[in-house]
Amino acid sequence: MESHHLEKEFAFPDFKTALAFTNRVGALAESEGHHPDILLAWGKVRITIWTHKIDGLTESDFILAAKAEQLPR
Amino acid sequence: MESHHLEKEFAFPDFKTALAFTNRVGALAESEGHHPDILLAWGKVRITIWTHKIDGLTESDFILAAKAEQLPR
Repeated sequence: MESHHLEKEFAFPDFKTALAFTNRVGALAESEGHHPDILLAWGKVRITIWTHKIDGLTESDFILAAKAEQLPR
Repeated sequence: MESHHLEKEFAFPDFKTALAFTNRVGALAESEGHHPDILLAWGKVRITIWTHKIDGLTESDFILAAKAEQLPR
């Protein structure tokens, strides 16, 4: 199951900055046409990426993950 | 464990409207000074509310849940 999805958690100093990052991930998702699950909580954002159609990973997942890593925190 | 947290899932027609609702929940959370976990995915938002300090439910949780219900979708 290790390759079923890509997951990364980002830490923030408060809720507001975590929400702002969520919006940047959201804008990226819309521009890529590929949408992760985004768990937003106080001080953290965890994104989980996979391709629903195949219930696994495709190139789009790795591209989205790489671009998410490059977003300003 | 039934009373450990309050959870509700809201459905949306796409990602954009789900993200917009997430921002409304976020603004409410900031104004209440009480922050739920928010899972944002394509077409849905699931909010989970509890009081971390007691690892259970307090009045603040029910107030936040009621106000979240009343937000425009």
